Amino acid sequence: MSKVQPRTLSGFMELLPPQQAQFERMAAILRETYSLYGFTPLDTPLIESSEVLLAKGGGETEKQIYRFMKGDTDLSLRFDLTVPLAKYVAQNYGQLTFPFRRFQIGKVYRGERAQRGRFREFYQADIDVIGDGKLDISNEAEIPAIIYQAFSKMGLRRFQIRVNNRKILNGFYAMLGLTDKSGDIMRTVDKLDKIGGEKVAALLTGEDIGLTQDQADEILKFIAIKGCNGEVLAALEGYRGRHALFDTGLDELRTVTKYLAAFGVPESHFAVDLTIARGLDYYTGTVYETTMLDHPEIGSICSGGRYDNLAEYYTDKQLPGVGISIGLTRLFFVLEDQGYLNQNLNTAPADVLILPMTEDLSPAISLATTMRDAGIRTQIHGEQKKFKQKISYADKLAIPYVVFLGEDEIRAGVAAVKDLRTGEQVKLPSVEAVAHIRRGLEQLNRGTPIRDRES
Amino acid sequence: MSKVQPRTLSGFMELLPPQQAQFERMAAILRETYSLYGFTPLDTPLIESSEVLLAKGGGETEKQIYRFMKGDTDLSLRFDLTVPLAKYVAQNYGQLTFPFRRFQIGKVYRGERAQRGRFREFYQADIDVIGDGKLDISNEAEIPAIIYQAFSKMGLRRFQIRVNNRKILNGFYAMLGLTDKSGDIMRTVDKLDKIGGEKVAALLTGEDIGLTQDQADEILKFIAIKGCNGEVLAALEGYRGRHALFDTGLDELRTVTKYLAAFGVPESHFAVDLTIARGLDYYTGTVYETTMLDHPEIGSICSGGRYDNLAEYYTDKQLPGVGISIGLTRLFFVLEDQGYLNQNLNTAPADVLILPMTEDLSPAISLATTMRDAGIRTQIHGEQKKFKQKISYADKLAIPYVVFLGEDEIRAGVAAVKDLRTGEQVKLPSVEAVAHIRRGLEQLNRGTPIRDRES
Repeated sequence: MSKVQPRTLSGFMELLPPQQAQFERMAAILRETYSLYGFTPLDTPLIESSEVLLAKGGGETEKQIYRFMKGDTDLSLRFDLTVPLAKYVAQNYGQLTFPFRRFQIGKVYRGERAQRGRFREFYQADIDVIGDGKLDISNEAEIPAIIYQAFSKMGLRRFQIRVNNRKILNGFYAMLGLTDKSGDIMRTVDKLDKIGGEKVAALLTGEDIGLTQDQADEILKFIAIKGCNGEVLAALEGYRGRHALFDTGLDELRTVTKYLAAFGVPESHFAVDLTIARGLDYYTGTVYETTMLDHPEIGSICSGGRYDNLAEYYTDKQLPGVGISIGLTRLFFVLEDQGYLNQNLNTAPADVLILPMTEDLSPAISLATTMRDAGIRTQIHGEQKKFKQKISYADKLAIPYVVFLGEDEIRAGVAAVKDLRTGEQVKLPSVEAVAHIRRGLEQLNRGTPIRDRES
Repeated sequence: MSKVQPRTLSGFMELLPPQQAQFERMAAILRETYSLYGFTPLDTPLIESSEVLLAKGGGETEKQIYRFMKGDTDLSLRFDLTVPLAKYVAQNYGQLTFPFRRFQIGKVYRGERAQRGRFREFYQADIDVIGDGKLDISNEAEIPAIIYQAFSKMGLRRFQIRVNNRKILNGFYAMLGLTDKSGDIMRTVDKLDKIGGEKVAALLTGEDIGLTQDQADEILKFIAIKGCNGEVLAALEGYRGRHALFDTGLDELRTVTKYLAAFGVPESHFAVDLTIARGLDYYTGTVYETTMLDHPEIGSICSGGRYDNLAEYYTDKQLPGVGISIGLTRLFFVLEDQGYLNQNLNTAPADVLILPMTEDLSPAISLATTMRDAGIRTQIHGEQKKFKQKISYADKLAIPYVVFLGEDEIRAGVAAVKDLRTGEQVKLPSVEAVAHIRRGLEQLNRGTPIRDRES
């Protein structure tokens, strides 16, 4: 028979079992953390009607969308989890209770140009809180606090959540009479890290944007405000009283900063940063980006912000919200690429491999049942293979414990438990064998999926 | 602004939060159970190259496939999890360790005609064990034992895993000299439940198949063999010695039956049933179907079997395996539709809602942190709303506990914990409040997602 070459499309991540186990641990930590903060899991379809999904229309994303006909239905694959959430909330408005707190971890699709570290199918892990008409500012502090918890539980240490407020930016540009140009200005200022202050100034005073030198200087001075959070807030106070929107934004930023501390986020892990704007037009208040301190070049690993109108394309209801999104597939790729994954993590498919040394497998099956009832992941090696091959199977999979069960052990009512890392072997009755293995696993499973330098 | 009507495509399941929570519990039980038996999680792309995905070609399924071009690439959405597994194993053969045990719970796509209870996007929850060249018969007993465990943990009681062996069927037809016609015969015999014995006999002796009356009688007599497993096996012994393949099949069936008992599956929950054939040609040994005793009309909720050649379209390697698949979306639909879901299950997004009664939220945040550290899912209601509205929020979401935190409580170092089901309220220091709530939750979370009659 002629064969088809088995292959996976480029831009689609498909992991080998140990890496998949690492990925699952990270996803599980996100699910647990999001749940602890009272978010409910949602699962929306991968495919939506194009009319619904592209209601907002236009923009950069549209070219990247996987869009196709099935029969005479125009379909698209979701490209983020926010538009499906907007649809869901508008559609089920009467059956939901607000503030509506949901998390979703799911794949999204963008037909980007294939290149290393860019994915066409990737997981996003989102949380959002949606209010009905109103939403309290405290949510804008809780959201980054959840991210701090999640990353910390994963073992990430050297990261920083950078916080700004769009009202401060918009208020500031209004002070200068530059509201109309604020979009262009922010996009230019966004390039500061890449091209430097001089080139930004040149672009700002250039033909396209056309600011005066004074205006450009004012802007560069403003975004150059640096220091610890207290210093930045103090500097911002110098602008107070010149524009109401700015003042509101400054009050919000003060509140968010105060509550972030109350939520247990140390100051080392969040920074007021006036250069953060987020490209999307719909952010109206607090905005977030998260950077790895030792890898600023990879950009933000978790971003989001406050918006006033989640579902304006579907409903007249005013649905303000705040949300944040982790690009989980890309984050995982970067962590693996940069050597952050904890190689000592137990990624074996089982904790115990039972090697039956008798023809009849029944005693092995019975012991396996005892182990599984105690929460120990157990395989029975029932194949007709040589002893050496069976041990090699456990070695290759890094299964931590092997249990030998021969005539002697069965007669004596014990199991021979071998720790494959230390080579230590003990004969124990099954109840004690279970306790022995559980103690070892507790030690072994203590590690986090990520190993970072100390923060 | 003109609005787009928010809607979800027909044939795509999208659940409200309480139902989603039920679904997640069922999926979590599957993940846990599969893991306890030493299966490793896999996650393959939703999209594959059409050439790869449709290597096998043809068949009923092809018309249903979501297939489309992106640029000049011919793509298809996966329609099951078996073909992607075959691709994965062939592609990563050198890096896998065999027997390779994997589970995958993921969405698949089939453009079926939309009708109630039929889905175009649905979850499959699969386990497979793949051998390299050989695979021991004991795996064919372990697979249905895992399903028994999983369904039992979900709370399903009145179901039966029906087991047959293709070698018995093929051997039997060979005895009658009907090997060439066995496909047609089995497809006809499959209709027995629907159309009855007489019509089956008429079809068998009709023009298309053309059996003699004697042959048709022999077949009907064979598939009429009923009784407890011991009786069926005894009846089958009557055919021993007439065909080697039959005899092998009978030996395998005896072994599987014996080990199923060893794996703890009670005889009430598995039945040797000679009418089970499974349509797919690639099954070569043990085959399974699972029926709900009180709802035979919905057909098999979990099916699979033994195959000799998982990846023959991709590789010359002989990769025999055994697998089983739960159609999770359809199962969930049926369970909900038939009133099997446990309405007392805790499906609230949080276990505790903290109502801060002071301007400053810091004490509430601090208490929430204590709760979350203890594994209690906690929300803070920080909105500017009336007390009654806040209580109504907890009521609507069925959050079991509300904690009031006012000046008095803060000063006294206590929290007022109210059980919303009983109305009972107690004032306790936070450590004791945590213990009190955990005791209550332990009780509350004891239930299974399914409530069935006793088996």
